[in-house]
Amino acid sequence: MRIGLLAGSGSLPRQVHDALLNEGHEVVPVMLGDAQPILPDATICPLDRPGRLIRHLRAKGATKLIMIGRLERPIVSTLRPDLKGWRILPKIIKGLRQGDDGLLRAVAQIFEDEGFEIINPLAYVPNLSLAAGSFGVPHVAHLEDINRGWALLDDLSSHDIGQACVVRAGNVIAIEAAEGTDAMLERVADLSDGRSGRQRQPSGVLVKKPKSAQDMRFDLPAIGPRTMELVAQAGLAGICVAADGFVLAEPEASKKAVAEYDLFLLIRDHS
Amino acid sequence: MRIGLLAGSGSLPRQVHDALLNEGHEVVPVMLGDAQPILPDATICPLDRPGRLIRHLRAKGATKLIMIGRLERPIVSTLRPDLKGWRILPKIIKGLRQGDDGLLRAVAQIFEDEGFEIINPLAYVPNLSLAAGSFGVPHVAHLEDINRGWALLDDLSSHDIGQACVVRAGNVIAIEAAEGTDAMLERVADLSDGRSGRQRQPSGVLVKKPKSAQDMRFDLPAIGPRTMELVAQAGLAGICVAADGFVLAEPEASKKAVAEYDLFLLIRDHS
Repeated sequence: MRIGLLAGSGSLPRQVHDALLNEGHEVVPVMLGDAQPILPDATICPLDRPGRLIRHLRAKGATKLIMIGRLERPIVSTLRPDLKGWRILPKIIKGLRQGDDGLLRAVAQIFEDEGFEIINPLAYVPNLSLAAGSFGVPHVAHLEDINRGWALLDDLSSHDIGQACVVRAGNVIAIEAAEGTDAMLERVADLSDGRSGRQRQPSGVLVKKPKSAQDMRFDLPAIGPRTMELVAQAGLAGICVAADGFVLAEPEASKKAVAEYDLFLLIRDHS
Repeated sequence: MRIGLLAGSGSLPRQVHDALLNEGHEVVPVMLGDAQPILPDATICPLDRPGRLIRHLRAKGATKLIMIGRLERPIVSTLRPDLKGWRILPKIIKGLRQGDDGLLRAVAQIFEDEGFEIINPLAYVPNLSLAAGSFGVPHVAHLEDINRGWALLDDLSSHDIGQACVVRAGNVIAIEAAEGTDAMLERVADLSDGRSGRQRQPSGVLVKKPKSAQDMRFDLPAIGPRTMELVAQAGLAGICVAADGFVLAEPEASKKAVAEYDLFLLIRDHS
């Protein structure tokens, strides 16, 4: 199958690109917005110039698209739209006002309106996620924290926010909203500074799962080596994610980091 | 009535102290923990030396206590407990592990176990809060954001977290957990940096209300001039708090700041 790969920043686009090729798919690589062009032979497409890109995708016969990677938020005053860009600009700006999710939704909608199908990479790229199971062993106290965080994220989900929280010894220490998981973990590391040496042994968990309204086709929760590093710096004991609800960036480096920082990584079924 | 005033940091203890005197009460002032001694003639009581303090309060005939102000978290390794301190130390340490709320609950419990009654300052100090109403005028969009945040905090309440969140244009930008309202507002100010000039006109609201399990006797949500300043720096349009659910620090300076920063302050009934 020929798949258009609309790539943002980070290591995930390259990982998905190579896995698709390994699976025998043909890939039409596109770097979206201001992302660093890390895909070989990629077409570069600013968010305000969709016209040429759409013609390019059609000419190459790519009807299915994967959107992956972090979209850099464009500065509205620097946008120089092409013809189609002028028509979609209001959608982009409205999306920008609604946060990162909104931007992704707006961009996806533009391509869907043009007749492309956006597909969930988890369904096409093997090993992009991990099956239910555990690396390292959470203790009973950690499982209690996990249950607490899991229930909280379920409740937050109906408010169309959430994705991640940190729970330690039964207390919710941090909840992610617009700042992103990394910034939340950095905050927890700062909060931990008040603890005395005795209390510094790792405790608490990062719980991360998709919200119910999450569009898994273009907005997959991701964890990677940097997540492990920040979790360790925050003094947490481990991570819990939902099976089929996340992508693992740089799988080998991630698993190595889990072991190196002596963390656990629990992949939990949705039930 | 003779009231023991157990004071932490910040301007609120002095405000409560003076208001109690104005109302004709007798006050036995105590500075708790490592708080700066801002009350006149106050006894100073580290958290690990409750024995002498309890004798002092009894000798002065103070059977009702008000706890007000921010408790600094003690470093466990520096504690030098007195006789009663040794008995209560495990409770203090357990409380410390459960966050600021836990510390307050633990300290309150210690005094209750000794037969003192902890009273809600809102019931004894007039003008410590504001009646339902509005300073400045929220727009319809702000009211929608307020409703969104209010419903979110109600849902979070059952998880024994919450107190505050920031909503802008229908999106929850930040949720407060252990970091406190000020840190959350600073985060929102950082998030706003990506917005272009056009988008910088104030929008979004800080919503703050007690959680259902909040013990209003010793853990009153507070706002003050610093809150107004941070709300303005975060580019928000205003604040919504719950009537009978907050104290207003430095009332005159607070109201002045609301006007100066062109904010609204909506005090909303609980219904």
